[in-house]
Amino acid sequence: MPFVTQRRVEFVDTDMAGIMHFSRFFLWMESVEVELMRLLGFSVVMPLDDRSLGFPRVSAQCTYLQPIRFEDLVDCAMCIERMGEKSITYAHRFSLQGNVVAQGSLVVCCTVKTDHGLRSTPIPDHIRQALQSSSAAVGFSKEGK
Amino acid sequence: MPFVTQRRVEFVDTDMAGIMHFSRFFLWMESVEVELMRLLGFSVVMPLDDRSLGFPRVSAQCTYLQPIRFEDLVDCAMCIERMGEKSITYAHRFSLQGNVVAQGSLVVCCTVKTDHGLRSTPIPDHIRQALQSSSAAVGFSKEGK
Amino acid sequence: MPFVTQRRVEFVDTDMAGIMHFSRFFLWMESVEVELMRLLGFSVVMPLDDRSLGFPRVSAQCTYLQPIRFEDLVDCAMCIERMGEKSITYAHRFSLQGNVVAQGSLVVCCTVKTDHGLRSTPIPDHIRQALQSSSAAVGFSKEGK
Amino acid sequence: MPFVTQRRVEFVDTDMAGIMHFSRFFLWMESVEVELMRLLGFSVVMPLDDRSLGFPRVSAQCTYLQPIRFEDLVDCAMCIERMGEKSITYAHRFSLQGNVVAQGSLVVCCTVKTDHGLRSTPIPDHIRQALQSSSAAVGFSKEGK
Repeated sequence: MPFVTQRRVEFVDTDMAGIMHFSRFFLWMESVEVELMRLLGFSVVMPLDDRSLGFPRVSAQCTYLQPIRFEDLVDCAMCIERMGEKSITYAHRFSLQGNVVAQGSLVVCCTVKTDHGLRSTPIPDHIRQALQSSSAAVGFSKEGK
Repeated sequence: MPFVTQRRVEFVDTDMAGIMHFSRFFLWMESVEVELMRLLGFSVVMPLDDRSLGFPRVSAQCTYLQPIRFEDLVDCAMCIERMGEKSITYAHRFSLQGNVVAQGSLVVCCTVKTDHGLRSTPIPDHIRQALQSSSAAVGFSKEGK
Repeated sequence: MPFVTQRRVEFVDTDMAGIMHFSRFFLWMESVEVELMRLLGFSVVMPLDDRSLGFPRVSAQCTYLQPIRFEDLVDCAMCIERMGEKSITYAHRFSLQGNVVAQGSLVVCCTVKTDHGLRSTPIPDHIRQALQSSSAAVGFSKEGK
Repeated sequence: MPFVTQRRVEFVDTDMAGIMHFSRFFLWMESVEVELMRLLGFSVVMPLDDRSLGFPRVSAQCTYLQPIRFEDLVDCAMCIERMGEKSITYAHRFSLQGNVVAQGSLVVCCTVKTDHGLRSTPIPDHIRQALQSSSAAVGFSKEGK
């Protein structure tokens, strides 16, 4: 099973259509990724030697299947779809009572902050190994639930 | 030239990395679409006979090329990439001083609200024609600027 | 002890100053109130007979004592400062490891939605009693911790 | 007349009650302040000698009189209610077609960023003088419109 956590739709997440605004799913994707990193002892922004390591977003995508509403408690599942030398593609699946309501992905790139701005860098081995040993290394089942 | 408007990065749009948060581009995409609809005399939520017509989002996607920062004044260009019977794909391109910083797309579906929830419906002719006569009917130039 | 729950600062909550944006505390105040109502079996928007009962905000206020940062885990305490016939004043106190970082208040008014808009109405007895029996009926201690 | 600008309610600003979420007024207050500073040639975060000058928020307050809705075009007026040695109190008034819909205030403190964190500092003379010569130096009229 992939990495799973839960989020509840808050009042401010809703819009005048009475449903969660489409943009919020991107915030949830990021917060699931941050939660996994934290559980593994890392962060999306952290010191590396005397520099700062980060994972800026390269692209983001989401498909909406069913609306969700105020106070809905949503299962947020995430798995590593692809781990390159310097980038990671996370796949996300959001479900309400077993039904997928949205699915998406985030591609992030490992970077260090230098005096000349951000520079992409290979994912450090200890982070790579921790991610590959985590539940997020397990892909989604085919059934889509 | 496609439909173009401008947005300035606000303080709340920034994050601790000092750049605009990736999720905000989706808000900008929606707000450009709303602005075009308003200029054409429509809205993204409007009465149709005795029902309510709307354009819920089916999918959203964005690719990030360069970070933008507080108070940057960004050109937001949008064109209609595809107009189906019931859905529209809007392509978006964000530029800072002529350089593309992000590009994305939103697919929206024309729906009416009935007693049984939302039902997809053909885009009304007057809306279709207005969109096809607007500047958004013009595609992006190839050069990517 | 008043009603207490916890929130963690998310990446999107931060701004370019590296701290949580001041506006987010208002979202947290609302979400603590919603959580208490949910635990009591109510909501901030709920059916009452054949009408809709709600608690729109009349005023909001917050004072900022210390900045908080990404991933900080914050204690969010709330108590009922005053319960009038139709309105409630909730006092909020946010603490990080025992130190108060911000405190504020929300005044909400009990309303029903009618065909002519919102109308203020006395707080129903079963809601009043549940709130007065909850931990939120207990005020903050003087020491400010 | 005080400093006045305009904002339009966006779709994401609305909530399931069909009105602008109460927290958004605080974003508008900040954005009006930023706009005035920008017109005067300053910013809310800017270099001062070799340090960084900023205006973190000390407190924020808002009272809600009437709801506003999607696409409403709102007049956002701001005046300087009090200018102390190190802090400024901005008063804000939001009006729709001449009717005040909300009013609030922000207290900000002038600070410099040092190696030991933020330290409050007297407002530099050139900023003080520019603010006192601006339209924001003019208070609101009594009639509340």
